[in-house]
Amino acid sequence: MTENTETKTTADTEQSAPTPVSVLGLGPMGRALAAAFLAAGHPTTVWNRTPGKAAPLAERGAAVAETAAAAAAASPLVVACVMDHEALHSVIRPAAEALRGTTLVNLTSNSAGDARETASWAAAHGIDYLDGAILTPTPSIGGPEAVYLYSGPEALYERHGAALAALGGTATHLGADPGRAAAYDAALLDFFWTAVSGYVHALALARTEGVDPSELAPFATGIVSVVAEVAEELAQETESGRHSGEEANLRSALAGIDHILGTAEGSGLDNSVLAAVRALAARAVADGHGEDGISRLVETLARPSS
Amino acid sequence: MTENTETKTTADTEQSAPTPVSVLGLGPMGRALAAAFLAAGHPTTVWNRTPGKAAPLAERGAAVAETAAAAAAASPLVVACVMDHEALHSVIRPAAEALRGTTLVNLTSNSAGDARETASWAAAHGIDYLDGAILTPTPSIGGPEAVYLYSGPEALYERHGAALAALGGTATHLGADPGRAAAYDAALLDFFWTAVSGYVHALALARTEGVDPSELAPFATGIVSVVAEVAEELAQETESGRHSGEEANLRSALAGIDHILGTAEGSGLDNSVLAAVRALAARAVADGHGEDGISRLVETLARPSS
Ligand SMILES: NC(=O)c1ccc[n+]([C@@H]2O[C@H](COP(=O)([O-])OP(=O)(O)OC[C@H]3O[C@@H](n4cnc5c(N)ncnc54)[C@H](OP(=O)(O)O)[C@@H]3O)[C@@H](O)[C@H]2O)c1
Ligand SMILES: NC(=O)c1ccc[n+]([C@@H]2O[C@H](COP(=O)([O-])OP(=O)(O)OC[C@H]3O[C@@H](n4cnc5c(N)ncnc54)[C@H](OP(=O)(O)O)[C@@H]3O)[C@@H](O)[C@H]2O)c1
Repeated sequence: MTENTETKTTADTEQSAPTPVSVLGLGPMGRALAAAFLAAGHPTTVWNRTPGKAAPLAERGAAVAETAAAAAAASPLVVACVMDHEALHSVIRPAAEALRGTTLVNLTSNSAGDARETASWAAAHGIDYLDGAILTPTPSIGGPEAVYLYSGPEALYERHGAALAALGGTATHLGADPGRAAAYDAALLDFFWTAVSGYVHALALARTEGVDPSELAPFATGIVSVVAEVAEELAQETESGRHSGEEANLRSALAGIDHILGTAEGSGLDNSVLAAVRALAARAVADGHGEDGISRLVETLARPSS
Repeated sequence: MTENTETKTTADTEQSAPTPVSVLGLGPMGRALAAAFLAAGHPTTVWNRTPGKAAPLAERGAAVAETAAAAAAASPLVVACVMDHEALHSVIRPAAEALRGTTLVNLTSNSAGDARETASWAAAHGIDYLDGAILTPTPSIGGPEAVYLYSGPEALYERHGAALAALGGTATHLGADPGRAAAYDAALLDFFWTAVSGYVHALALARTEGVDPSELAPFATGIVSVVAEVAEELAQETESGRHSGEEANLRSALAGIDHILGTAEGSGLDNSVLAAVRALAARAVADGHGEDGISRLVETLARPSS
């Protein structure tokens, strides 16, 4: 299943005459993207459904288009970043003729299925299409911390790599299937929100023992490093199918989780997330995998209980 | 609620004649602790309920005691690390007389209530008591990555700091309440296991789209850094009670989580953890906090729905 991926940092990309770029959608993210193109010297045209959001960009030299079609007609490279897949189609469908012959780079959050649907629509209308996902928040855009994933035709990514480098940070092309960037994005956001929910629960639990959030927070960084180390190991074990319980097994993990859940239950918090984590580990142990490593849970998740 | 805490690294502590130390419990962690004391030149006596685990330590110079009481009588500093609170008491109660006048440092995982109970028992038997928690796995012990929390009388921690420095890494004394180390430990393990469950679910979800674990893993590191940054902000907002939704609000978080959950549901995985995360965010929004920041969830968790 491995596809060729290619990661670029801004520094890798050669300078050439900046391509004109149009940005469709001026929410917080669209504005950040347009500002980064302007800062890198790209002639930039912007459009938003609701007028009035373009003024600060216009001051920095952006052309403001009256319609999405007019914006699309102004540049060979069109970057769309609106709320969701439905919003995207309500923007691009009426602009199909103007988009013909351009490259549409869609940075709207979507699913793998959405991305493939948009790619088919684009192909049917003579529009070159790259799908993308932004993994970092608006303040990162244009700077070294931004992280972007792209998928779609390799040649197209090569052609526009220099322009997209204006967005800063690290960009990775994940292969030709347009759904891949969205697939990675969904999995990574899944991890993010679950981890954040664990952290807010930890803050709440510590508080019931009189430990202030600012007292606990410095130690959270240490836990985060352990998670990062474990992540690499769990991926290797999942891929090899050898769920080694030598370092840590599910039986002892379940005992540990039971212990924390017991403490949490005594404190009267909403412990539903931790209870679901416990139930998952318990199901793996009940299935006879108590001596396996934690990576066994990937298989347990794929076989939901009836 | 803030207590004085003091963090030490090995380098901070002055050299002096190594204190004799006894280690009760030779599971993987007890063995690692005893090995670290031996490596740092402490005369070390070891004991384990089931005989036969001490041989490699004896080869490195450890004295092997026949009973816990004999081990306790051999050193002014006694470190206990057995499976749990119940196991600890079944070890220390019969050895109470031998422990009188020593300092008992308990590194067994326990709850804040357990730690306070053991502290009371120790006080009633003329035993000085420090409770501790180990935040890192056995391979870290003795090295720079080990992380320890201690709580109990400040003067006691001062007296034994040099000996405990043999265990390596970073040690923090969290104040006089013996329950504090365990309270931090429970909260941090809560965070750890929830985050790990999010990661294994992310691996499972990516797989349903043909993305291999080793392809996703490198990007997990980036997510982990974002979590670390967010952790500091969330702690500050929770402490101040100002749950600012300017950068990210609960309404948009819920929309994002709904989107991922929708994708996950289509893939047939066990999504119970993510569904519980979603329900928590939905409850906060239903309570009228949609425009608040993510830190609002700490309050939502403290008020379980009926
Ligand atoms: N903000 C971040 O930190 C971040 C990070 C990663 C990814 N993203 C993704 O980036 C995309 C944009 O996010 P955002 O932060 O800029 O804010 P947003 O609230 O998700 O999107 C706002 C933009 O969508 C437009 N829009 C919504 N419905 C529309 C419709 N039916 N027709 C046309 N335009 C419509 C809005 O136009 P109006 O002004 O006319 O309403 C505005 O331009 C989203 O997919 C988001 O998930 C954002
Ligand atoms: N391993 C880690 O990475 C790690 C990390 C942080 C914290 N900890 C904590 O460290 C402690 C020890 O963990 P571990 O990894 O060494 O393995 P463990 O399996 O948790 O504990 C094994 C030890 O407990 C003893 N024990 C169990 N029940 C007993 C009883 N009723 N009476 C006397 N001794 C009893 C065992 O003696 P027998 O040999 O006679 O059974 C053995 O010495 C635990 O509280 C654990 O949570 C471990």
